[in-house]
Amino acid sequence: MIPRYSRPDMVAIWSPETKFRIWFEIEAHACDAQAALGVIPKANAEAVWKAADATFDVARIDEIEAVTKHDVIAFLTHLAEIVGSDEARFVHQGMTSSDVLDTTLNIQLVRAADLLLAGLDRVLAALKTRAYEHKDTVRIGRSHGIHAEPTTMGLTFARFYAEMARNRTRLVNARAEVATGAISGAVGTFANIDPRVEEHVCEKLGLLPEPISTQVIPRDRHAMFFATLGVIASSIENVAIEIRHMQRTEVLEAEEFFSPGQKGSSAMPHKRNPVLTENLTGLARLVRMAVIPAMENVALWHERDISHSSVERAIGPDATITLDFALHRLAGVVEKLVVYPENMLKNMNKFRGLVMSQRVLLALTQAGVSREDSYRLVQRNAMKVWEEGKDFKEELLADPEVTAALSPAEIEEKFDLGYHLKHVDTIFARVFGA
Amino acid sequence: MIPRYSRPDMVAIWSPETKFRIWFEIEAHACDAQAALGVIPKANAEAVWKAADATFDVARIDEIEAVTKHDVIAFLTHLAEIVGSDEARFVHQGMTSSDVLDTTLNIQLVRAADLLLAGLDRVLAALKTRAYEHKDTVRIGRSHGIHAEPTTMGLTFARFYAEMARNRTRLVNARAEVATGAISGAVGTFANIDPRVEEHVCEKLGLLPEPISTQVIPRDRHAMFFATLGVIASSIENVAIEIRHMQRTEVLEAEEFFSPGQKGSSAMPHKRNPVLTENLTGLARLVRMAVIPAMENVALWHERDISHSSVERAIGPDATITLDFALHRLAGVVEKLVVYPENMLKNMNKFRGLVMSQRVLLALTQAGVSREDSYRLVQRNAMKVWEEGKDFKEELLADPEVTAALSPAEIEEKFDLGYHLKHVDTIFARVFGA
Amino acid sequence: MIPRYSRPDMVAIWSPETKFRIWFEIEAHACDAQAALGVIPKANAEAVWKAADATFDVARIDEIEAVTKHDVIAFLTHLAEIVGSDEARFVHQGMTSSDVLDTTLNIQLVRAADLLLAGLDRVLAALKTRAYEHKDTVRIGRSHGIHAEPTTMGLTFARFYAEMARNRTRLVNARAEVATGAISGAVGTFANIDPRVEEHVCEKLGLLPEPISTQVIPRDRHAMFFATLGVIASSIENVAIEIRHMQRTEVLEAEEFFSPGQKGSSAMPHKRNPVLTENLTGLARLVRMAVIPAMENVALWHERDISHSSVERAIGPDATITLDFALHRLAGVVEKLVVYPENMLKNMNKFRGLVMSQRVLLALTQAGVSREDSYRLVQRNAMKVWEEGKDFKEELLADPEVTAALSPAEIEEKFDLGYHLKHVDTIFARVFGA
Amino acid sequence: MIPRYSRPDMVAIWSPETKFRIWFEIEAHACDAQAALGVIPKANAEAVWKAADATFDVARIDEIEAVTKHDVIAFLTHLAEIVGSDEARFVHQGMTSSDVLDTTLNIQLVRAADLLLAGLDRVLAALKTRAYEHKDTVRIGRSHGIHAEPTTMGLTFARFYAEMARNRTRLVNARAEVATGAISGAVGTFANIDPRVEEHVCEKLGLLPEPISTQVIPRDRHAMFFATLGVIASSIENVAIEIRHMQRTEVLEAEEFFSPGQKGSSAMPHKRNPVLTENLTGLARLVRMAVIPAMENVALWHERDISHSSVERAIGPDATITLDFALHRLAGVVEKLVVYPENMLKNMNKFRGLVMSQRVLLALTQAGVSREDSYRLVQRNAMKVWEEGKDFKEELLADPEVTAALSPAEIEEKFDLGYHLKHVDTIFARVFGA
Repeated sequence: MIPRYSRPDMVAIWSPETKFRIWFEIEAHACDAQAALGVIPKANAEAVWKAADATFDVARIDEIEAVTKHDVIAFLTHLAEIVGSDEARFVHQGMTSSDVLDTTLNIQLVRAADLLLAGLDRVLAALKTRAYEHKDTVRIGRSHGIHAEPTTMGLTFARFYAEMARNRTRLVNARAEVATGAISGAVGTFANIDPRVEEHVCEKLGLLPEPISTQVIPRDRHAMFFATLGVIASSIENVAIEIRHMQRTEVLEAEEFFSPGQKGSSAMPHKRNPVLTENLTGLARLVRMAVIPAMENVALWHERDISHSSVERAIGPDATITLDFALHRLAGVVEKLVVYPENMLKNMNKFRGLVMSQRVLLALTQAGVSREDSYRLVQRNAMKVWEEGKDFKEELLADPEVTAALSPAEIEEKFDLGYHLKHVDTIFARVFGA
Repeated sequence: MIPRYSRPDMVAIWSPETKFRIWFEIEAHACDAQAALGVIPKANAEAVWKAADATFDVARIDEIEAVTKHDVIAFLTHLAEIVGSDEARFVHQGMTSSDVLDTTLNIQLVRAADLLLAGLDRVLAALKTRAYEHKDTVRIGRSHGIHAEPTTMGLTFARFYAEMARNRTRLVNARAEVATGAISGAVGTFANIDPRVEEHVCEKLGLLPEPISTQVIPRDRHAMFFATLGVIASSIENVAIEIRHMQRTEVLEAEEFFSPGQKGSSAMPHKRNPVLTENLTGLARLVRMAVIPAMENVALWHERDISHSSVERAIGPDATITLDFALHRLAGVVEKLVVYPENMLKNMNKFRGLVMSQRVLLALTQAGVSREDSYRLVQRNAMKVWEEGKDFKEELLADPEVTAALSPAEIEEKFDLGYHLKHVDTIFARVFGA
Repeated sequence: MIPRYSRPDMVAIWSPETKFRIWFEIEAHACDAQAALGVIPKANAEAVWKAADATFDVARIDEIEAVTKHDVIAFLTHLAEIVGSDEARFVHQGMTSSDVLDTTLNIQLVRAADLLLAGLDRVLAALKTRAYEHKDTVRIGRSHGIHAEPTTMGLTFARFYAEMARNRTRLVNARAEVATGAISGAVGTFANIDPRVEEHVCEKLGLLPEPISTQVIPRDRHAMFFATLGVIASSIENVAIEIRHMQRTEVLEAEEFFSPGQKGSSAMPHKRNPVLTENLTGLARLVRMAVIPAMENVALWHERDISHSSVERAIGPDATITLDFALHRLAGVVEKLVVYPENMLKNMNKFRGLVMSQRVLLALTQAGVSREDSYRLVQRNAMKVWEEGKDFKEELLADPEVTAALSPAEIEEKFDLGYHLKHVDTIFARVFGA
Repeated sequence: MIPRYSRPDMVAIWSPETKFRIWFEIEAHACDAQAALGVIPKANAEAVWKAADATFDVARIDEIEAVTKHDVIAFLTHLAEIVGSDEARFVHQGMTSSDVLDTTLNIQLVRAADLLLAGLDRVLAALKTRAYEHKDTVRIGRSHGIHAEPTTMGLTFARFYAEMARNRTRLVNARAEVATGAISGAVGTFANIDPRVEEHVCEKLGLLPEPISTQVIPRDRHAMFFATLGVIASSIENVAIEIRHMQRTEVLEAEEFFSPGQKGSSAMPHKRNPVLTENLTGLARLVRMAVIPAMENVALWHERDISHSSVERAIGPDATITLDFALHRLAGVVEKLVVYPENMLKNMNKFRGLVMSQRVLLALTQAGVSREDSYRLVQRNAMKVWEEGKDFKEELLADPEVTAALSPAEIEEKFDLGYHLKHVDTIFARVFGA
């Protein structure tokens, strides 16, 4: 976790305070269930809730752990200090540390997913707003970095919106993957605890009981979770790369917002660097690097080994914190992106109409000119544009062989941008609904 | 693609013959739609279907491509040779090569997903059968490779079943991710073709129209697809590692099936190697290696660059063929796995009852012995087992301090396996339904 | 292995014919050593060399393997068919299949490394030639895609040369990593064969004896080998991305060579796509994906498991063939790259001198103007350039407050390109030697 | 960075204090060089060294950065507060932030490499000691997890030693990769600073001048560095997996050291979990995950983009700190590993001599028995061992068909362990020198 790439809400999910709070809730709900089953006295279950408003003292727990060498026992000892050691004596009965630890990890991941969904929603809102704002802002579409046919800036925003909307669906699925809990004992047989305890605790904490666990919750769930984060990060990179391209000096169709007071902005007005989207490109790599270790974590030995644990201590916070930060950074970039429609037009006209050469070629063929002749006609006029800087349309209009096949109006029509934009509304309706 | 790790049905999906057949269908359906819209003559659309029963001559198409340097044009030229060049002259009108190529890739991936689902179903069936067969076959559960508490072989199969059932759901989602087609032109604006052509073609081919495409279908879909394959592969590794552990000489709780005639089996009966599951471990790595490149493919430049193409030429066939092979290999292994219940019991009793020490400890405490004394009592008897090879239960029964707290019947009860198995039916009901 | 991304020499290394030839050489040299040690008769060792000019019949070996289910036995049977079964009866004595298989893999990797070194040498030669050709071809240096200060195209080529030269050193190291052989028996103890056999075979085949092996050669060597290929691939991507940027419509400082006859080139002269470098970007991803599986292959169980084998069957050929192809494709691109110096100048002057604003700022300060005033002076003239399209130098020359501090000659000097190029020779001497 | 997986020396390398100290040294040495070149006054260069013993106030620098939004400027401002703003006015002249930042990163990586080398040396020392200690401790060698032929525990340690010694060489190479510095300006042309400044600073700081840089030091160097860490981590996993296997209940040939006082050790003496080596398995995944992002960092745009920066902020500390911790944890595990030679013998004899069946088979053939008959003889005695629990040697000695071909002494000889160990000294000499 790198402070400069972190937002407090997500960081808080991974704090010791939050962890101990979740541990407490699991233990307290488990006591309730045990009491309801008659396994432990009701009074003891109720007593545990005395700690409901307590702040657990992390330093004190660390101090105890230094002696006991066991984190859960240290916590339980501290809990007994709050609740009273007699009252607390049935806490954790029949449970295994992993029951608490694994259920807690999933709760943290679920909460992380909720924050990420909020981040995605902010990104979606920004993309939608900008898409409608620039629905008809014409720019050249490019394949291979080379001018192809006209499109609009709105379509660019709209396709990023559609991609992020897919990511939202994926993240909802990923959240469901990890929204399970397990209180099933040392090898998952419920030997020492009734399955109804698990059911109660899960219900109270918004989880489903893991249908079958071992000592741990199966890690294919977490692999899928982190794989999904990797896909979302790759989409962030996709948007970031587009903006970086748009901001490069020779293109300059858009710029990351640059506050007026920002140093250097006006003495070197050309030197506004797309550092936020470059940063997002790097952050995408960081999120993605969690994917393979999460997959390597799946094949644990028998009912569990603990190799996954160190991996999750790192990638649990790191991947969610980084992605959360990246989503909000991206949202900010999109919300405030400075778009230059006039530069878009200027770029599109860089080769004075040449991007329309394919339409002209097709029109000549359809007008009955042979394929070879059509090609020759387009070619000789295109070369004048390319080599002598002439205007393509004017050359065509001045070429008698061309005008023999196409009227001036027909030629004009080939340069009509409306031709390219006629289905923009259809596409918007598909993406954003009618 | 490595022949020895390939099944013919999946290989066929990626053959040139299949590819050209799909290209043909896309073009022919597109002609129908164009004719219905009045863009091209109905007769020409109908004529294209003359090739419906043709086998496309791959060598001939390659020959043409060697001249034209363009695969789609080569195919269209060959199609015209079959259909008649006059009849075929409206084929592909208004379309871009990528319309055909990208829609084809998705059809191939959808078909691959269908085969993978069939493979998963075979794995699921095998796991379920073996789970019920060994529902009550007791074996020791292990954490950290060390004996913990008893469980059953049926629970092991059942948890792999539950994991693979999750993978089935994931794969259904992944299939939906790539079940889209696009016929939207050079930059996705439908400038030269009506969106209804896309709708018609997609409907005929079992796809949804891509809501918004550029020259290509967005690659976040494919990233998600391959990420899902990576998760499934990791689950295969999970099962494979379990079996490899079970087959190792010192454990020998199960073995991959070894046909009686198989060389060396009886002269060296101890030397039956789990080569299939070792192989599956390697195949899992191969499938997983497609994940990151698929994610790196998402951020294409502007309306497309072609960097993704070489990656997909490799991972498209390789990852699906390898996973398909692995699923069937795994199914075969599970179906025929030779299970040794008697060795399971022998292993469980390796330390003559010591695995029950925790239950005894708990019982002593609950019987009113102090925590310290309970621990001391368990310890002194455990050490006799550990160091002198005594039987734990017998030592306890012979220890007056122990029997002062627990009756012989109570001590016996702590060694009752039924205690550990009482919830197996509950768990089975959760996994397989009531 | 994808035929279109393969060169025959590298493909040949991985053919069954090559493999059997290497197997033969290992067996024949081993027989010589065994004969020299008196373990087998000299005549039998000599007889084996009768097969030295034979072509091994792959179909026949496959046929035998279909029966014996063992590749090495099948080969030995076929060898006996050539040499005579009595003469051949001591072949392979005391050896284990892995002795042959692992030593063969390393020989293939060493040969692959030699081809890759040749490919790198071709890339290096091309880069050096183009570096000197364009040593003084001025272009704008860019940070963040934004104009920074002038540099030269020769420096760009030179830094790629330096990077590829480092890759050459790395590849020489990687070659040494895998240039070992092992003939040490079932668990590496030489129980059934004298270590001198290993020494003799290795010496004859240009390998060093593996100091300590198990049944297999340790896989950390191969992990390092494939990791190195991944670094080289990343450098290829680095060059490819630079060229793709240079070729984009708005920049057009260079283009991949486009043969005059190439379709579409002259009717759409703007539409020349950098498809080779885009392809190289994808190929880099493919080579890189071998790295993690190769690392996962290191931790084999005990004296070996066979999980690494399927991985190597794929990545051995795939990564080397793809990288070999990529190096030669890259060399071709560099050799024939069409460079447009005039466009470089045009781009550099896009903002009419603004890239020099920092030098002017510094000069003003050094001339005694306060930092704040210097900034204000630069800013007001810069904004006229940015907003009104004026020329920066002319504005400065016309600004009395500026000329009060700097003489016209001093202002002129700030726009002198020589200032930026004065150390180009120094850098070239560092890279290419004096 | 996870505190529990960190050692203070490595953490210190990545602290703000260390960073600012290095920044200071670069700036101060650069001033010296500038003064020697007559670019700045000698007195000013000397004055900078007044800060040589200062502790830079991180909080104060952060405070300034909050205003200036620029880390290097904030530092320089603070430096001026210490040195005196007049004296400090030539500091950083002609330099670019990246000159400082990139050179600093490399110094940190070099120092990290030095610590890692020390960690490797400790691992090597431990492995060597244990190898000699157990040179003749016989244990069964295993392929595929199945008993194969005898080997010794010393050979196991020796092969890990050889592997780690290779890693040492690799790390020395990797250290050299990043032991360069650059002070070459905004695009690497030395426009504003003499190359001799770079040379002086590098010499003073133990670096080589980067022969050709842009704004940044080329990232192929760092890719190679992190790839090497990934290989080392994979070797750690290799050792860890071996120990985890040895400690599993059914094998128990070795155990991680368990301090007598450690909770639970004696009440459940069977339950000593190999948690350190399991943890190392996970840490290996964490180190390895830096490899691909480091390779993705190579292809920066033009003279630099800043996408690599966030990646390095994470993987720079994380990968080195984790690997450093893992090396020392591994060294501790090896140093104190509890080895059980008697269990090794017990395991080897699990199938009462069957592991020798191949030697017997060979001996029969060499004694003139036909291959088929030899196989039949071995088989029928092997099956008695396998199915009836008989002793293989005794059965052979009692089988008249066997004793017709082999004398009792010859049969005995086949079970002689010395046969397998006769080359242990040779191998040790290869690994550790004569």
